[in-house]
Amino acid sequence: MEILNRIHTPADLRTLSDLELEGLAEEIREFLVEKVSATGGHLGPNLGVIELTIALHRVFDSPADPMIFDTSHQSYVHKILTGRADRFDSLRQKGGLSGYTSRSESEHDWTESSHASASLSYADGLAKAFEITGQTDRTVVAVVGDGALTGGMCWEALNNIAAGHDRRVVIVVNDNGRSYSPTIGGLAENLASLRMQPFYDRVMEQGKTTLNSMGWVGRRTFEALRAVKEGVRHSVIPSEMFPELGMKYIGPVDGHDLESLENAFRYAREHQGPIIVHCVTEKGRGYAPAENNVADLMHSTGVMDPATGRAVGIPAPGWTGLFSTDLVEIGAERDDVVAITAAMAGPTGLSRFGEAYPDRFFDVGIAEQHALTSAAGLALGGLHPVVAVYSTFLNRAFDQLLMDVALLGLPVTLVLDRAGVTGSDGASHNGVWDMVVTGIVPGIRVAAPRDGRRLSELLREATDIDDGPTVVRFPKGPLPDELTASFTLGDGVDVLVYSDCVHPGEDSGGADGEDPEESGAPSVLIVSVGAMAHIAVAAATELGDRGVDVTVIDPRWVIPVAPSVLALAADHDLVVTLEDGVIHGGIGSLISEALDASEIDTPLRRLAVPERFLDHASRGEILRELGLDADGVATQVDSWLRTIGFGGPQTEPDGRGGDA
Amino acid sequence: MEILNRIHTPADLRTLSDLELEGLAEEIREFLVEKVSATGGHLGPNLGVIELTIALHRVFDSPADPMIFDTSHQSYVHKILTGRADRFDSLRQKGGLSGYTSRSESEHDWTESSHASASLSYADGLAKAFEITGQTDRTVVAVVGDGALTGGMCWEALNNIAAGHDRRVVIVVNDNGRSYSPTIGGLAENLASLRMQPFYDRVMEQGKTTLNSMGWVGRRTFEALRAVKEGVRHSVIPSEMFPELGMKYIGPVDGHDLESLENAFRYAREHQGPIIVHCVTEKGRGYAPAENNVADLMHSTGVMDPATGRAVGIPAPGWTGLFSTDLVEIGAERDDVVAITAAMAGPTGLSRFGEAYPDRFFDVGIAEQHALTSAAGLALGGLHPVVAVYSTFLNRAFDQLLMDVALLGLPVTLVLDRAGVTGSDGASHNGVWDMVVTGIVPGIRVAAPRDGRRLSELLREATDIDDGPTVVRFPKGPLPDELTASFTLGDGVDVLVYSDCVHPGEDSGGADGEDPEESGAPSVLIVSVGAMAHIAVAAATELGDRGVDVTVIDPRWVIPVAPSVLALAADHDLVVTLEDGVIHGGIGSLISEALDASEIDTPLRRLAVPERFLDHASRGEILRELGLDADGVATQVDSWLRTIGFGGPQTEPDGRGGDA
Repeated sequence: MEILNRIHTPADLRTLSDLELEGLAEEIREFLVEKVSATGGHLGPNLGVIELTIALHRVFDSPADPMIFDTSHQSYVHKILTGRADRFDSLRQKGGLSGYTSRSESEHDWTESSHASASLSYADGLAKAFEITGQTDRTVVAVVGDGALTGGMCWEALNNIAAGHDRRVVIVVNDNGRSYSPTIGGLAENLASLRMQPFYDRVMEQGKTTLNSMGWVGRRTFEALRAVKEGVRHSVIPSEMFPELGMKYIGPVDGHDLESLENAFRYAREHQGPIIVHCVTEKGRGYAPAENNVADLMHSTGVMDPATGRAVGIPAPGWTGLFSTDLVEIGAERDDVVAITAAMAGPTGLSRFGEAYPDRFFDVGIAEQHALTSAAGLALGGLHPVVAVYSTFLNRAFDQLLMDVALLGLPVTLVLDRAGVTGSDGASHNGVWDMVVTGIVPGIRVAAPRDGRRLSELLREATDIDDGPTVVRFPKGPLPDELTASFTLGDGVDVLVYSDCVHPGEDSGGADGEDPEESGAPSVLIVSVGAMAHIAVAAATELGDRGVDVTVIDPRWVIPVAPSVLALAADHDLVVTLEDGVIHGGIGSLISEALDASEIDTPLRRLAVPERFLDHASRGEILRELGLDADGVATQVDSWLRTIGFGGPQTEPDGRGGDA
Repeated sequence: MEILNRIHTPADLRTLSDLELEGLAEEIREFLVEKVSATGGHLGPNLGVIELTIALHRVFDSPADPMIFDTSHQSYVHKILTGRADRFDSLRQKGGLSGYTSRSESEHDWTESSHASASLSYADGLAKAFEITGQTDRTVVAVVGDGALTGGMCWEALNNIAAGHDRRVVIVVNDNGRSYSPTIGGLAENLASLRMQPFYDRVMEQGKTTLNSMGWVGRRTFEALRAVKEGVRHSVIPSEMFPELGMKYIGPVDGHDLESLENAFRYAREHQGPIIVHCVTEKGRGYAPAENNVADLMHSTGVMDPATGRAVGIPAPGWTGLFSTDLVEIGAERDDVVAITAAMAGPTGLSRFGEAYPDRFFDVGIAEQHALTSAAGLALGGLHPVVAVYSTFLNRAFDQLLMDVALLGLPVTLVLDRAGVTGSDGASHNGVWDMVVTGIVPGIRVAAPRDGRRLSELLREATDIDDGPTVVRFPKGPLPDELTASFTLGDGVDVLVYSDCVHPGEDSGGADGEDPEESGAPSVLIVSVGAMAHIAVAAATELGDRGVDVTVIDPRWVIPVAPSVLALAADHDLVVTLEDGVIHGGIGSLISEALDASEIDTPLRRLAVPERFLDHASRGEILRELGLDADGVATQVDSWLRTIGFGGPQTEPDGRGGDA
């Protein structure tokens, strides 16, 4: 790493010779493979943008010229070049480097969210601000993938950027023909045709020719040749990408040729208005295991052997895999079930459904809005769509769920993977908002399976419902052990077994059974949501050991509130809800609202995720920090019991006004 | 209405002669002016699509061929032609015709939401369903405005529709160059150039020529002429709109020439794949007051004199107008304040700011996502953006508010007009969700002014906050009378005067003052949100007359919960929250969560909008129906007081278990 060790700021890049630059690219390639193998992370995308990022930092003057990386999982090279190489051992670890750009890490980082297609809107706003404040010498650079361009936000932004004729926005399209999987839709076909044109092929395959001396001459053969013939080498070739917006365009540029890239970027920098630079790159470039892994070119990897690219350790069967299997089975039984993904067929487990039933599978691009509303259209046409997305990305389609699906009462099943605290991907990947936004959708039903068996059951129940939207949500990671129910109440609520013994109310049906209060011990009802069940029963065991009479229930369907939850609540001294979503508007609040409406004033306490953005760390570390592990739960419940008059010296027994 | 009276179903249209069709169009024009003058509604958009809708229903076979109207405020003609002319006196009235398409009204209606840019996604889904189920003879028609095309959802949908080479989707672009106001952005410039081409001008202005015998020949002069010369009159002219998607395109078509329209639609119907038909129409066509009203061409009108187009009665000064004035003032004092609208400069009151400070005003198109994230960019550039949108449309940009604004702690002020129950515009226009979705945004502060004076104060407070997003929300309609505060607590919470007397706690600061319980009368704390204050004080007066000791507070800033709200709650027998948003996750729940977290177990009851879609009616009618008028509130509070042990015979005094 002889050259890399000399790079501490982007300015250091400008002192390097061409040969040193090539060497630097190779060193960064090695560095990335070594470091990301050890921590896990987005390897493929970063291997694809090494030369592109070096060229950007040589031509533009960051941070005076802001660089916005769309999604920003491809910002590792940028991090390396802006003084953070020495922190890569801590990538995505608690307290370590974020896997995305992060303003607290560097003045070279401007944004933090990992949600795609937002970069061009940021760029438009920044360019407007520079115009208003007279900083017209600053250029805003946005690096956006061809996949992100399938997202509607990019269209909205381009429409505005194009109208700002004098604002200096350079849009670098990082076109690798595949975002998470091959990019789809009409746009992808057009990009492919741009890439495939004979002139461009010649440039890419035969190396630099005199025609290519500027490095950026492109467009369809005829026009490109004409431009060269007429000596218009410096002029902007009319747009091939978004021509209806009148955007200036240059490209395609070989995204691994430093000289071509620099020439294109220099041209763009001198242009006094918005311009697109179309760069063609290869995801996973230069790393054989990625190049051979055609499925996702190592988009995102766990810890792995750098020599082979093989995962270290055998991953346990996970929630996603089970869902994947179950949906293929359901698809075999019912030919009205169709599946939709927003460019995440692999990560959501839908690719197997797509292989089994290609005619009933749709990848709509990074386009959650369209995923939901086209699902509504499919449902209007008599089918039952299953839309699988990460929980956090549902926020992109809340309006569509509410207005386009629920207002019409359509049977669309949403499968929300990565629900709850996800951990190492940082604040914007946590799936802690879905129960709030689904909770205000009229007629929706939301299931939160606690284990694999429940996932299989609830997925079938959800797809059998034909009079409105349904949701099945589950977390990231391996499947937990199965958790037995001691019995199931009439409305489907499971009373869970813990501590090797069965809760006293088992043969009573709960509400009308033996009154726990009569035993003299304080009685607590823990309502556990989904995968929090293991923590709930462990906490109940601890509390039981301390003489507290605990009932743990898993409602299975958490929205709407099942009647027996209310009946059980009325029969206990304290209700505690435990969930891995945010407090406000969560399941705890939903139950509180139902209790208040039924005029049941049993004190209720919520254990949930606070309303703040969570720093990256492992799921377990975060839950522990939030007091959402078994010890934390038991300790907190114990403390609450004392406050409401059990086991301690405090306050009135009716539990009111104690702290006032 | 001699011809119109003979039209009961679309099939009846097919028996009419050309002359009768022209007569029908004129009759519908008269009918619309007469009826919409009496009820209010979207006059201009419907006057623009009379011929277009007649032609669609002659060529396509609704409902076998579904017609999806984007936004659907332009579906009045469709309603007239599908048997609903006799119900137009009830337009937008309680129990009457909806102002949008409505599935309960007719099998010819497929969707209901009034949110723009969704039609193409529905169409894509329906076309996929027809393909899967082998109904390949059915064609899906979507009618979408040029304004809606600036919305990202349309881009996502087009990208998918274009990829469905064999699916029969006809996209009718209703291009009037102005959605709510002139359409903006690069797309609009391109459409304008299409419309302005010399060949097209000749066709539009000089009437039909032999060249135009098919009615749909268009595109740029050279290509159009070449196509005709080569006898390719039936072939599809290469796309001028969305060429990068490879969409087939015909147009522009004179949108008021029935023959041209029918020819184009017939051609499109025979095409075995997706196709765009570009129709140029004039909003307000044929009605002089609309044609002369250049500002919005009578996009949406109240009750008016049909002869002059002038409003009947003098509208009272409204919330929007006051905000408009205030923001212009703030803009004069601070040159860092910029304003953003999503194609609603007039309806949100921002047009005056735009006139005063054109360099600091941005209309981004129907693009709420971009509105928020470009605002984030402006804030990163050191400015303070004010984004004014209708409350209901914030749902389109929830993810952007959370991820792109709040995650970075940026000072963006959202002004949410039409918050709460809006009434006659129906389910999808109610602004009843904003407090839920903003309630889960970390660091956000939300103000709900109760009257004009408070709006002016809170808008200034909000724009003075520079460390995170702020919201100011207010309802539709005229400003209410000013409501005096008897005093303001240290954290800004107002204690309101009612019943000509001042609440006993006035000189105590609330929490530490005279204990209302000592008087023997039950004490109730009513927490009123924003414009519900008038109802709250009226209800308090009624309750006071019945001997209940009521404190009414207006927290002004409703998110986060002010400490004195909790202190006061601890000091009363019952807390009642009153708000015009939905129950789940509303301000009532936010306060309940804070009380539970502080272990204050004063019973709390929520008066709010239930989680169901509301039928259209006036705001007053809806609030009354929901029990959210003064009588309803007083009666309900009285009943609750009896249940918790005051003034009635019921249940345990600790208020627990009463209903179990």
